[in-house]
Amino acid sequence: MPSASGAADISSPPIERERSAVSYTYDNIKGWKNMRLLRIGRGVYHDVRRRLPYYCSDIRDAWTYRTVASIIRMYFVNMLPAIAYTLDMNRRTGQFYGINESLFSSALAAMVFSVFAVQPLTIVGITGLISLFNYTIYDIVTIYEPSIYPEFMCWVGIWGAIFHWIVALCNMCDYMRYVTDFSSETFGFYVGTIYISKGVEELISEFTTKGHIAGFMSCMVAILYFLTIYSLEAIGSSTVWRPGFRGFLADYAYVIGTIFWVGFSHIPGPLQSANVTRVPISKAFYPTQPRGWLIQFWELDTKWVFAALPFGFLIMLLFYYDHNVSSLTAQARHFPLRKPAGFHWDFFLLGCTTFIAGITGIPFPNGLVPQAPVHTDSLTVYDTELRIIPTEEGEGSEIRRPVISAVAVVEQRISHFVMGLGIIGTMTGPILVVLHTMPSAVFAGVFFIVGWGSVGSSGIMRKAIHLIQEDRFVQRDEPLLKVRSRKVMLWIACQLIGVAACVAISETIAAIALIPFRVWIIPKWFSRDEISVLDDMTADNKAVLASLGGPPHFPGETHPQESGLERRYSEQKRGVSRQRAGSIHR
Amino acid sequence: MPSASGAADISSPPIERERSAVSYTYDNIKGWKNMRLLRIGRGVYHDVRRRLPYYCSDIRDAWTYRTVASIIRMYFVNMLPAIAYTLDMNRRTGQFYGINESLFSSALAAMVFSVFAVQPLTIVGITGLISLFNYTIYDIVTIYEPSIYPEFMCWVGIWGAIFHWIVALCNMCDYMRYVTDFSSETFGFYVGTIYISKGVEELISEFTTKGHIAGFMSCMVAILYFLTIYSLEAIGSSTVWRPGFRGFLADYAYVIGTIFWVGFSHIPGPLQSANVTRVPISKAFYPTQPRGWLIQFWELDTKWVFAALPFGFLIMLLFYYDHNVSSLTAQARHFPLRKPAGFHWDFFLLGCTTFIAGITGIPFPNGLVPQAPVHTDSLTVYDTELRIIPTEEGEGSEIRRPVISAVAVVEQRISHFVMGLGIIGTMTGPILVVLHTMPSAVFAGVFFIVGWGSVGSSGIMRKAIHLIQEDRFVQRDEPLLKVRSRKVMLWIACQLIGVAACVAISETIAAIALIPFRVWIIPKWFSRDEISVLDDMTADNKAVLASLGGPPHFPGETHPQESGLERRYSEQKRGVSRQRAGSIHR
Repeated sequence: MPSASGAADISSPPIERERSAVSYTYDNIKGWKNMRLLRIGRGVYHDVRRRLPYYCSDIRDAWTYRTVASIIRMYFVNMLPAIAYTLDMNRRTGQFYGINESLFSSALAAMVFSVFAVQPLTIVGITGLISLFNYTIYDIVTIYEPSIYPEFMCWVGIWGAIFHWIVALCNMCDYMRYVTDFSSETFGFYVGTIYISKGVEELISEFTTKGHIAGFMSCMVAILYFLTIYSLEAIGSSTVWRPGFRGFLADYAYVIGTIFWVGFSHIPGPLQSANVTRVPISKAFYPTQPRGWLIQFWELDTKWVFAALPFGFLIMLLFYYDHNVSSLTAQARHFPLRKPAGFHWDFFLLGCTTFIAGITGIPFPNGLVPQAPVHTDSLTVYDTELRIIPTEEGEGSEIRRPVISAVAVVEQRISHFVMGLGIIGTMTGPILVVLHTMPSAVFAGVFFIVGWGSVGSSGIMRKAIHLIQEDRFVQRDEPLLKVRSRKVMLWIACQLIGVAACVAISETIAAIALIPFRVWIIPKWFSRDEISVLDDMTADNKAVLASLGGPPHFPGETHPQESGLERRYSEQKRGVSRQRAGSIHR
Repeated sequence: MPSASGAADISSPPIERERSAVSYTYDNIKGWKNMRLLRIGRGVYHDVRRRLPYYCSDIRDAWTYRTVASIIRMYFVNMLPAIAYTLDMNRRTGQFYGINESLFSSALAAMVFSVFAVQPLTIVGITGLISLFNYTIYDIVTIYEPSIYPEFMCWVGIWGAIFHWIVALCNMCDYMRYVTDFSSETFGFYVGTIYISKGVEELISEFTTKGHIAGFMSCMVAILYFLTIYSLEAIGSSTVWRPGFRGFLADYAYVIGTIFWVGFSHIPGPLQSANVTRVPISKAFYPTQPRGWLIQFWELDTKWVFAALPFGFLIMLLFYYDHNVSSLTAQARHFPLRKPAGFHWDFFLLGCTTFIAGITGIPFPNGLVPQAPVHTDSLTVYDTELRIIPTEEGEGSEIRRPVISAVAVVEQRISHFVMGLGIIGTMTGPILVVLHTMPSAVFAGVFFIVGWGSVGSSGIMRKAIHLIQEDRFVQRDEPLLKVRSRKVMLWIACQLIGVAACVAISETIAAIALIPFRVWIIPKWFSRDEISVLDDMTADNKAVLASLGGPPHFPGETHPQESGLERRYSEQKRGVSRQRAGSIHR
């Protein structure tokens, strides 16, 4: 189990933390005060009050090497998919959203959340979700009146912001405590699948827009880029070379891979003449369209203003799940976090960025599912320890096994902030030109690696591998052996149906339905003991649950803190897993 | 250690085997009779006498499923590189050697060696060596008189045959017993490197001959083909699914991969229109050039006949090492072989095939280095056993580890024979047409997979990985720890210099020099104990050494049977390794 004993020192008084951790709860409150919807702003207030004392340490704690490595890694992991989604969105919204809008949105989100958020670990930016959302609305609006698209989107943002604020003030983020691995793994798997298919789409579009030479070359580069990053990250989890050097390779895998393959694509000869798609850029700091940064939202007809209302509600619903789950996974149980979370306040803040994004005509940012946990991972100090298992074969033949433990997380605001500065820097002319050198094949490669990182390391995959494993080689103390294979299969099937539903509806709505499904249906199909092996809370840290009104109560189940046998077993045997290229415990 | 207890029953009397195993030796013989060069035909006689009693069992033992799997695998592993080398040779010898010549040569070799050889496990066919040899001579001959190339090559074959017979009759194959892992690993590594670079060459030639679309598509297909076969073979060595099913996937990896990717290359659209190079074919059963199958060698001028003599000597020298080493590795120590070897007789036979190949104008076949051990591997019955290592952590937490042991080898002639029939079948019209559907990218993929199989599983790689391993995770009973790292590095350096020398001279000559280097120089640089850890005999089976006049005597070293600590350690811990896609023991 991750030990927090070696953690970086936290400068606020522990008593304060203890006290505030229990102050936000409805457990022993009776009468109308127990109805959380009526306790306007209670969650937001407690979130801020709980975290504020740590603000200084959030800056002071940042002065470590981890922060530098994190900034570099996150710059790539956050920006490359954002740009890739923008390429898509740009094509399909009549060039309204361009690269400058995306960078502005990412930078805005990074600035606001790194400075004002309770939980600055949650990376906020542009997702595929918002790309899809934007061009779907574009398709609808252009049926009636193409010219009003900017103003209409602006009102969607304004309504969305209002709904965000209502949800945050009415303490409705509390329901996120019912998110267990069942839902978060399913969602992660779904997003990973979407990322991979998005990578394939990027490659196909090379064939249609740039011809066969560019298409085949892009396929080749994307595959090799994937293999490069995957290998470098795999070396980081191995035991070759010194810990420092292999850590360096893994930390800068994206830098090394990207520089190499971008350079490769420019080698004169067949490679250069393949004329692949490169990132399209426009004048630095200006909107892609000839317009000012402020949308004239007051010029929109009233009927359209109200037509935007349901879309505003929809964006809130999508973000409710997307943002909160990414925040939750960024604070998942295997990270030894010590500073408190703040879901209500952060969701309120998300309303603010949605508002700003709306009136400036940029895509709405929100919490990023694979990126947010990758951020925490990049800030985690991992220690590869030697575990010697004495065997009965006598001296010298004990078994030496590397066990990775998460010693501490460098919890601070600087990495998110500087990454944001980096994105602003990218908006300047010279760096835009550098960006223009990047072939879209590299983006496809990033989608593959981030997507596979999410799919391959998922619990669904782990359980599936357990199922196909030849029985006699399974360790006898493996907790999954306590559950009949048919039940494990049923569990995976439920999750995969959830993934399929998400793909079919192409939106997060289906993912939201996973929470009630888990709370009410699953306990009818699985026994208490089975659930304790198969499921686990996504975040069980007290500092996290404090913001959600304490641990959840599942009807008819054991106390959730007692579940997660499978996880505890795995951690004890092999240490924690890293959020890297699909590193599965085997 | 591999146990031979479960081996297929061998039908000849064990007493006979014992007696004949010791009958060919010079150890206790004095006077002129101790000079092996003067004992004309002694080795050949004993080879035949030793093996003849097993002839019936060589046919009877074949009726197992292993033989079927072996035939299919070897058909691909033998034929695809042969065809690929032919494409090259065809271009560079003025289209004298075409696909029909290559198939004929492979089929001839398979027929002759499967029926008449003492060791039918040694796969004989077309190598890159002979392709290089043929077009080098073509380049030389065309300076003087291009038209005589067929007759000149014919005389090279005739002289080569004569030298083969002399070497075989003078018992000179005996020196092969001095081949240890030092030389055979170096040679294997060299050939693997050449295979991989040959694959790259194939891909580059797509760019120059067929244009960029075909080039990039071929790169993509070759990489994916490699990954497909590699993954399928890796599954075969894992513990997922039932042993039968995962064995099936590994056995038919080439079939599955080849059918899939050949089909893929024909999908209408960008893939089909990429117009990649496919295997060029001509009329079935006829020579590529308008000529008869018999070369009119008697029409060549006498001066040219004698000019061919040194080349004949050269081909003998090349084959001496190439053929005997492939035979040796096909009978390497980790295969539990029970039937006796026969190096002298087989080399005599190689003289005969060289003669026939010479007068019919087809490339000279010889023993194939990566393919011969793959053949034995494909015939080996592996058993994945469960080893339970009790730990001191108490009940249920013992460690379960799969240990692969080689139970038996299905030693017979049928697999080689039927594979030869398959090649003859391939020479018929309809199958030639099927062959014509294969893109050259698939051949590049085969080169990658066979080459990496040879490089990745090499002892050089294993020692290198040991060196970069972080010390504390190395098992304390690892024998390599007994040798200082500097010495291990020196050992690898010697081997890599050997590889570099082979590449530089582009021929096997350098490889031959490895044997005296190992015998006289290495003992001066390494202590007896170090050598016992670092080196090992390539084949230590009594049945093999019997044909070479008994075990070798290295000046100033321990008895070679006592060396190979590293190998014995590894086998004891993890069982034997398979000759598959670079499966390294870690």
